[in-house]
Amino acid sequence: MKEIMAVIRMNKMNETKNALSEAGYPSMLCKKVTGRGKKMVNMDILEDLIEGKEIDNPHLIETITENNRFIAKRLIYLVVHDEDVKSVIDLLIDVNQTGNMGDGKIFVCPVDDAIRVRTDECGDLAI
Amino acid sequence: MKEIMAVIRMNKMNETKNALSEAGYPSMLCKKVTGRGKKMVNMDILEDLIEGKEIDNPHLIETITENNRFIAKRLIYLVVHDEDVKSVIDLLIDVNQTGNMGDGKIFVCPVDDAIRVRTDECGDLAI
Amino acid sequence: MKEIMAVIRMNKMNETKNALSEAGYPSMLCKKVTGRGKKMVNMDILEDLIEGKEIDNPHLIETITENNRFIAKRLIYLVVHDEDVKSVIDLLIDVNQTGNMGDGKIFVCPVDDAIRVRTDECGDLAI
Repeated sequence: MKEIMAVIRMNKMNETKNALSEAGYPSMLCKKVTGRGKKMVNMDILEDLIEGKEIDNPHLIETITENNRFIAKRLIYLVVHDEDVKSVIDLLIDVNQTGNMGDGKIFVCPVDDAIRVRTDECGDLAI
Repeated sequence: MKEIMAVIRMNKMNETKNALSEAGYPSMLCKKVTGRGKKMVNMDILEDLIEGKEIDNPHLIETITENNRFIAKRLIYLVVHDEDVKSVIDLLIDVNQTGNMGDGKIFVCPVDDAIRVRTDECGDLAI
Repeated sequence: MKEIMAVIRMNKMNETKNALSEAGYPSMLCKKVTGRGKKMVNMDILEDLIEGKEIDNPHLIETITENNRFIAKRLIYLVVHDEDVKSVIDLLIDVNQTGNMGDGKIFVCPVDDAIRVRTDECGDLAI
């Protein structure tokens, strides 16, 4: 079994939850976090902005103002069977990919065991 | 060494902390999270409820109203020696098992190394 | 690739963020947590305190009052390439080591894969 940890935009949270639930992955944990990616101010665009040129991409302004600041993000944790990792990742990309910086990241980590407290079930039975 | 991550009920937090501490596991991290398990509305019970029938299990109403909503839970992290994993899990189950849905889950994950910042100690010495 | 999870003092957060960013590790996640380490009241010191003796170490009083309570800490997550683990840990120790209890801990955990949602890049390309 694997832990899938996805850092996503705040405003993608509900859609992501619903999509996971509809796809058969209702169990998840959510946390508020702040985060920062690798985004750096693109100075060419900044100059264009300063010069008042029209910017094609409406997200660029957001990107620039977000630079070097920590941004409120949402973190979703799921523990899934090995064979479900790919479909969960595909779903997360499908819902969260806008093509703009800040779309987030997904990490896959090993999990040795899971236990359902109510029943003592462990291993694959518990997820 | 292993990371033990337990998702438990809010109202079990203090008892769990105290039990862990008394059992010799004082080091832990706690977070507020929201989560959702696999619980689905049991339509038979819902009908009974609607019909005004008496419900034996007082937790069922809670369960039904919680369905499809995210519930505030508490997350406890501990990093323990391999040989302590079982006793910590047993303790967590002992304190948190009510037999009702929402008792929570425990995950065991591998940890490669631990470092105590104050002393530079690493490995098993640091936990 | 590895996940580095560092539990640090609240008031070391900004310095730590800046140091990581300057060292080429701008991508990170931060969370508020509460935690507790192994610290126990040192009764000799407590007696000294009660007797009104002067205490050399100004942090001891803080330590004593913190005993058995959960303390607000900050948690930083980074996912880095294997070859960067040591330098990130050294940096985290360098910034956060005061020599007093409560300096925090660092854990290194395995990560199987990373995916950048915006581009579908995975593996080392995504971190």
